Amino acid sequence: MKFNLSSIFTFSNDIFLIIKELEKTVSDFNIGLLEKDKSIKITIKNIKENKLEISIFSEGVFRPHNALLQLKNTISSEFGKKHHLGIRSIKIENYTIDFDLDKEPLKELTVPFAKIKVTDKHVSLILEDISEEFLRRNYIDRMITLVKDKVDNQYYEGKEEFWKLIWESEHKDPVWTKDPTEEMVKKGWLKQGPSKGKWFYRPQAAAILKTMERIALEEVLKPLGFQEIIESNVVPFDIWLKTGHLEGMPGEFYYVSEPATRDVEKWERFVDLTKITKEVDLEELKKNVALPNAGICYAQCPVIYWSFKGATISEESLPVLIYDNTTVSARYESGGRHGIERVDEFHRIEPVYIGTRQQLLNLREKFNERYKHVFNNIFELEWRMAWVTPWYMQQAGKIGDRSMQDTGTIDFEAYMPYRGEREKSEWLEFQNLSILGDKYIKAFNIKAQKSELWSGCSGIGLERWTTAFLAQKGIDPKNWPDGFKKYLDKIPEGIELL
Amino acid sequence: MKFNLSSIFTFSNDIFLIIKELEKTVSDFNIGLLEKDKSIKITIKNIKENKLEISIFSEGVFRPHNALLQLKNTISSEFGKKHHLGIRSIKIENYTIDFDLDKEPLKELTVPFAKIKVTDKHVSLILEDISEEFLRRNYIDRMITLVKDKVDNQYYEGKEEFWKLIWESEHKDPVWTKDPTEEMVKKGWLKQGPSKGKWFYRPQAAAILKTMERIALEEVLKPLGFQEIIESNVVPFDIWLKTGHLEGMPGEFYYVSEPATRDVEKWERFVDLTKITKEVDLEELKKNVALPNAGICYAQCPVIYWSFKGATISEESLPVLIYDNTTVSARYESGGRHGIERVDEFHRIEPVYIGTRQQLLNLREKFNERYKHVFNNIFELEWRMAWVTPWYMQQAGKIGDRSMQDTGTIDFEAYMPYRGEREKSEWLEFQNLSILGDKYIKAFNIKAQKSELWSGCSGIGLERWTTAFLAQKGIDPKNWPDGFKKYLDKIPEGIELL
Repeated sequence: MKFNLSSIFTFSNDIFLIIKELEKTVSDFNIGLLEKDKSIKITIKNIKENKLEISIFSEGVFRPHNALLQLKNTISSEFGKKHHLGIRSIKIENYTIDFDLDKEPLKELTVPFAKIKVTDKHVSLILEDISEEFLRRNYIDRMITLVKDKVDNQYYEGKEEFWKLIWESEHKDPVWTKDPTEEMVKKGWLKQGPSKGKWFYRPQAAAILKTMERIALEEVLKPLGFQEIIESNVVPFDIWLKTGHLEGMPGEFYYVSEPATRDVEKWERFVDLTKITKEVDLEELKKNVALPNAGICYAQCPVIYWSFKGATISEESLPVLIYDNTTVSARYESGGRHGIERVDEFHRIEPVYIGTRQQLLNLREKFNERYKHVFNNIFELEWRMAWVTPWYMQQAGKIGDRSMQDTGTIDFEAYMPYRGEREKSEWLEFQNLSILGDKYIKAFNIKAQKSELWSGCSGIGLERWTTAFLAQKGIDPKNWPDGFKKYLDKIPEGIELL
Repeated sequence: MKFNLSSIFTFSNDIFLIIKELEKTVSDFNIGLLEKDKSIKITIKNIKENKLEISIFSEGVFRPHNALLQLKNTISSEFGKKHHLGIRSIKIENYTIDFDLDKEPLKELTVPFAKIKVTDKHVSLILEDISEEFLRRNYIDRMITLVKDKVDNQYYEGKEEFWKLIWESEHKDPVWTKDPTEEMVKKGWLKQGPSKGKWFYRPQAAAILKTMERIALEEVLKPLGFQEIIESNVVPFDIWLKTGHLEGMPGEFYYVSEPATRDVEKWERFVDLTKITKEVDLEELKKNVALPNAGICYAQCPVIYWSFKGATISEESLPVLIYDNTTVSARYESGGRHGIERVDEFHRIEPVYIGTRQQLLNLREKFNERYKHVFNNIFELEWRMAWVTPWYMQQAGKIGDRSMQDTGTIDFEAYMPYRGEREKSEWLEFQNLSILGDKYIKAFNIKAQKSELWSGCSGIGLERWTTAFLAQKGIDPKNWPDGFKKYLDKIPEGIELL
């Protein structure tokens, strides 16, 4: 990598009389830096009136922008007292960063704050007229990383997700081949809406979903020793900044805004217009609603990690085993909504676990036992398990190393008879189980007394369990397995609508 | 009331040759209307080139704007065929409505779309240069109602809420006088955030809240025969337009916006900026997020009513007894947040009931029995019941008739020892019970086969139950009543943080 920075220092007074001293200070400063970076070279290009023009070159071990900021301090302290001379401003006229990529970009690249020139694998980032503040914020290194990641992602785009079968059940003859959502809608158990990708569960469908909840709690989470917590359904941006969700999938959130005011007088015109027109005047509304500063829960784990932010967990409390079963998740689907299995709003119990690597590997085995028990003995499903690309790596816009099996995600997939033959149709991912290493532990600065911590989660989507089960076993309780009938053997009467 | 409307019809051609015919048509039309409204008087003010200028006066039984629209139709059909003459446009130059109020306004009045002049109790609404479309939409009557309501509300503002004691328990000696939230925060059972007015319930506090949920289900809702439904947490504006919430409390919602797009390319700059700056660029975000079209659940009943929109309920299913225990409610508090009892986000089980007047009056008795059982025998609280102003009337910006006791709201209030002496301190409203008449039934056009329907609801706020109980009984299970200990006799260990 090569870094070239040109900058002009503007002093509070003419520097004509102290040229020699300045040259010596800059030269000494450069010599001092050579210990850190042999390639670094500071050159005085011009001195005129109260302006000192310099350039800084380095091959990148020590970044020129950091050298520039240090040089400013050095000059300020040396010349401030002695000559009553201050640096009024520094202007960065040009900052060019040259580096090589592993692979040639496949399509055009852009990056904020810089022009970008690409020749084969060679990239030049050209920043012009940037502020001292900009340099201080350390954006430069993130810009370089961003360019590299963008090219990496270009190569991964469109490639099939990593998928490796771990286990599969025997074939089971499905009771029917109908789409359970459609059938429940026909029977009035379920109603679409009130907005897209959302559902209203009448007593019959609610009873099935709530049975899934009871089974998850009684057969999986309680036997494993999980404790319930209750978190907020509204996730402020600062949490998603830490987890990487905000840069990973901003097009998939339902955004949340607060009123800009509760002052009744400021709302009076909106209220009056609503009363008169019985419509929503969006322009008037816009005046009184702030910009979004949060989103509806997307996954429950970010807020759980936030709750441990900066904390030190006692060794006796490891592994931490907790779950949220209260928040409702929302994900904006641009298309591909289907039934209750691919929706904008869904209900998930999310267990999160924090502990040592070994504790989590043991826990994963126990989780798999419990899930197998539920899916084999209670649901009697035809299903399989597979290693997949860790979801969080996709979500953060990064595609991970495929060889890791300590960390990573196991998908649980169920055959969906209504979609066609088992060999040719897409199976439904109805459960997953992840160990995520220390990604979130570090992001939220969570510690234990002694142990190195890892974490993971295993979202139990009630709609997914429900459709996987009903797609194979039908909606008539008489065809349901005995294990399930112990939890629910009768559909409630509901309300008769004519 | 007096209505004066001046309008100009512009024809597709000169009307010089058919003046007499036009005069006769207008005169005949006026005579026809006199049957409906003796006061109505249509006057031709001027005829020039292709323009007919008229005024219409009435005392309001038949509105001039309706007369105008009908007159347009009459002229169009009579002259269209005969003279190949069409009405190109009608312009309403001035529309003045005069009426008297019951009381003189106490402060300045405004109303959209009109100038308003007030002399003592007399009001003139002056509309200028309005469109035909405006008249068709029937805004006029809503504007008159709005002015009257505003003056009524001026008189009610600042008046104390109607409150009438129905029943009170005996005094009970509280176990302590501490604020339970503060004590739970100190013990680490509860953590504030992640945003204002929201809480994170660690296992200890979650166990208490979830116990309240079980008690509500086992001791109140199941014995009364309620069935569970699951509704959406995101309430589209059209539902709140029907219930009146959007005009009632727009400053109290958490608003929800969808992404304007899921197109990755459109989000690229936002994502890049987020990755580089680790901050949210609100201007860039604004480009990709739509204006709000919904809000987070405020009360659960609106979506329940929506689910019955236009439906006819079988007599056998009456009374309909259902509840939602899944959505999380959010209300924007501008101030006055306190502990877990006055928050921006809370958890409520909301039973809704629809049936005949008599069915609901009977149900109210049964509800009161169940609540008394819980509050007396399980919580052993010091509490009282009072009639209060129906909340929905306040919420819709209207203050209701105080004499009605078939419809209306009962508040359940608990003494909060930490707030001071029982006679001088404010008690906590920790439960309510409403019968709302046919307000929402009509708004959503819900019918039964034969019966006239009423409806009501009775929000069970889990945070409110929790604070009422803990404020009197403390957070040490050894001091809890036996009835409660049957549900929870031990606080879970939780996770030890150092």
